[in-house]
Amino acid sequence: MTSLLLKNGFVVPMTVQGEEPISFRGSVGVVDNRIVLVTRSEEEAAAFVASHAACRVIDCSEKAILPGLINTHCHAAMTLQRNHADDIPLMAWLNDHIWPFEAAQTKEDIALGMTLGMAEMLLGGITSFVDMYFEEDFCVEVVDRMGMRAVLGCSYFDATIDKTLSSAERAVKAAAGKERIRISVAPHAPYTVSDENLKRGKRFAEEHGLDYMVHAAETQDEMQQVAEKYGTTPVRLLDRLGLLDKHTVLAHCVWVDEEEIALLRERGVTVAHNAQSNMKIASGVAPVTKMVDAGVCVTLATDGSSSNNDLDLWEEMRSAAFMQKVSTMNPLSLPAYEVLKMATVNGARAMGHEGELGVIREGALADLIVVDLEKPHLQPIHDLVADLVYCGKASDVETVVVDGRVVVENRQIKGLDLKALYRKVAETVERITKQIGM
Amino acid sequence: MTSLLLKNGFVVPMTVQGEEPISFRGSVGVVDNRIVLVTRSEEEAAAFVASHAACRVIDCSEKAILPGLINTHCHAAMTLQRNHADDIPLMAWLNDHIWPFEAAQTKEDIALGMTLGMAEMLLGGITSFVDMYFEEDFCVEVVDRMGMRAVLGCSYFDATIDKTLSSAERAVKAAAGKERIRISVAPHAPYTVSDENLKRGKRFAEEHGLDYMVHAAETQDEMQQVAEKYGTTPVRLLDRLGLLDKHTVLAHCVWVDEEEIALLRERGVTVAHNAQSNMKIASGVAPVTKMVDAGVCVTLATDGSSSNNDLDLWEEMRSAAFMQKVSTMNPLSLPAYEVLKMATVNGARAMGHEGELGVIREGALADLIVVDLEKPHLQPIHDLVADLVYCGKASDVETVVVDGRVVVENRQIKGLDLKALYRKVAETVERITKQIGM
Repeated sequence: MTSLLLKNGFVVPMTVQGEEPISFRGSVGVVDNRIVLVTRSEEEAAAFVASHAACRVIDCSEKAILPGLINTHCHAAMTLQRNHADDIPLMAWLNDHIWPFEAAQTKEDIALGMTLGMAEMLLGGITSFVDMYFEEDFCVEVVDRMGMRAVLGCSYFDATIDKTLSSAERAVKAAAGKERIRISVAPHAPYTVSDENLKRGKRFAEEHGLDYMVHAAETQDEMQQVAEKYGTTPVRLLDRLGLLDKHTVLAHCVWVDEEEIALLRERGVTVAHNAQSNMKIASGVAPVTKMVDAGVCVTLATDGSSSNNDLDLWEEMRSAAFMQKVSTMNPLSLPAYEVLKMATVNGARAMGHEGELGVIREGALADLIVVDLEKPHLQPIHDLVADLVYCGKASDVETVVVDGRVVVENRQIKGLDLKALYRKVAETVERITKQIGM
Repeated sequence: MTSLLLKNGFVVPMTVQGEEPISFRGSVGVVDNRIVLVTRSEEEAAAFVASHAACRVIDCSEKAILPGLINTHCHAAMTLQRNHADDIPLMAWLNDHIWPFEAAQTKEDIALGMTLGMAEMLLGGITSFVDMYFEEDFCVEVVDRMGMRAVLGCSYFDATIDKTLSSAERAVKAAAGKERIRISVAPHAPYTVSDENLKRGKRFAEEHGLDYMVHAAETQDEMQQVAEKYGTTPVRLLDRLGLLDKHTVLAHCVWVDEEEIALLRERGVTVAHNAQSNMKIASGVAPVTKMVDAGVCVTLATDGSSSNNDLDLWEEMRSAAFMQKVSTMNPLSLPAYEVLKMATVNGARAMGHEGELGVIREGALADLIVVDLEKPHLQPIHDLVADLVYCGKASDVETVVVDGRVVVENRQIKGLDLKALYRKVAETVERITKQIGM
């Protein structure tokens, strides 16, 4: 049994009902991988330490204690292609850069890229992520070693479905007994995967008790292709195929109308909103405010670092809020607390842990971050949540706890040699770019 | 005579013409406040050190060397009101929060807020800023002490013009002999200052050889007020009054049409674009791409931290680029290098130092920053400028040189006790909020 006390910080539990203050000065006690104490009382905190042998205590006096952030859609391994091909047209980007690069990658390269992505996420306070890529079965081990919580989505096109479903079977076996890691089935998109293969993935997911994830309604081009092929929209098509339920995550949903928004809510679908990716590659502005108002479970995500180009959920929070405000021409749209909910409470559904992740309450899983408030850009503190959402940065995260284990301390990832990782990444990228003649 | 060598980094000089690479491995030598050497040659760098007694050498092997960033529009003292009143309607924001708070501030409070703002800017690699606020004469000393380069804009409404022009006279005297500090005249806006008083400020500026700065075309509400009062638009009005020339900085220019864009270019006006402020308070999307294409000198700015809420030019670079891409529905809009130019080369005009600030070339003023590239979010480095613009963070800035002097080293501002500053800020804010009953 291990125990830990995050002592005397500004706790933002994300569980507030009604008129309660949304943060308070207090402590959080952890035993093994669960939060067992959330208290304003110094006496209770002291008693917790006294009653748990070898209890680790981290002083949080000038710090905020938050649930770990949840990144509900990314392609972590694509860090290898970060800034590989920016500011060029989409088809040249795919044909001349992304696809040749991906074709030249080995499984080991993908695991390396994922490790770099996880290092970035952890240092920025992301404790959980939903991934979507290839060779996920091979990556189970590096994710486990890194100590993060993840849903690894095995992604396929029509041509690769057999290979991917075999990989998913291996991934399920590799993840057996690893509570932090879950596997899901992730067809690429309704315009790149046939209706039959979209359904086949869902059947596989249901047989194995897995979640299901797909890019949907991301660009106008996709809307047109789906309209031409099926005479409808991506979300309506997915619903017609019986693919929308509370085990489904849809990435993007930029182009959804009010009827589709009602459908998303009714089916209990989780939407992964990728604010910066949608902006950078000019996909459009998702109607987040409308979705949130309608009661859709909207979460936040970074997308891959070849389209964003970082894995920073603090920037996503800000960009999501700012984009909604300017696109609705209403500065009251998507206020700070709502955005923080998207990055925590709401994200938990995508992880299969609704109610026990993304919140600080007794009984919840112990995924916690400690944010240093003694930074010029966070001072003075008039309103802690606005401070965190509108001014907080990935680099303000000092300590990260996943599943009760301290994995980042004083901004260092335990047991990871970053310089060696950068060298290996540089060598790998050099080998691949030479190989593909760039 | 002091000397300094930034040795063996990735230099991004921002002076590239034609087909030259936009960055190279090299060193930058500084004597007193000027750059005197920019070289790819290790021998030349070694000779520089050998020929300058007590030359300070900073190793930049895994780092980028850039011109200091230039923030062309802010209200630095408003850090005191950071997150003071977010996500509430504009008039309630002004009437119930901002204005009562400002009325209760002393000169000393303003200087304190400005100090906090400067600390944030310096740590994020901003070496120069254009300010717009009250009591600027009183602030000359703290700006001087902080070691930053600044244009301090003395701001007025109709009711305060006499007071402000007296303050401007005192400011000019206080800044005499201080080469880093210049004074400018800054009427608030065409909808809050009469045409007569707009002109009176310009006459004063011309008599004293000062620049001129004004908020213009920020919101639809302003457009309507100016249309009702003058039957024209803010930019056309300012031009009709003879106020547009190369000594004028217009903050915002969100609502400008193509004819006005041509006018801005023709008059040599500098536009300060505040991407995040425009988004957060839902002012609208400035036609930056059109202005840049038309040859207008567009620069980047943070605005004040009561509307943004931080003073972070890295985020402004990213937001400006992303907003243009999504608002034009073209991912090629405002590419990385163009945005970096806005934050450096272009900004120099607003500082009255066109061509000798915002660039790394022999003879230019020595305002330089060193960015640590050994961060997970900056690796691997496929394209250095895209890496910096799309992934770089304020917290990656390690060393800051202003006017030849190292003012930030290892992310510490020399001679500033930040913890003491935070305490004083907290006490001041507590006093003010009590006083105004909040």
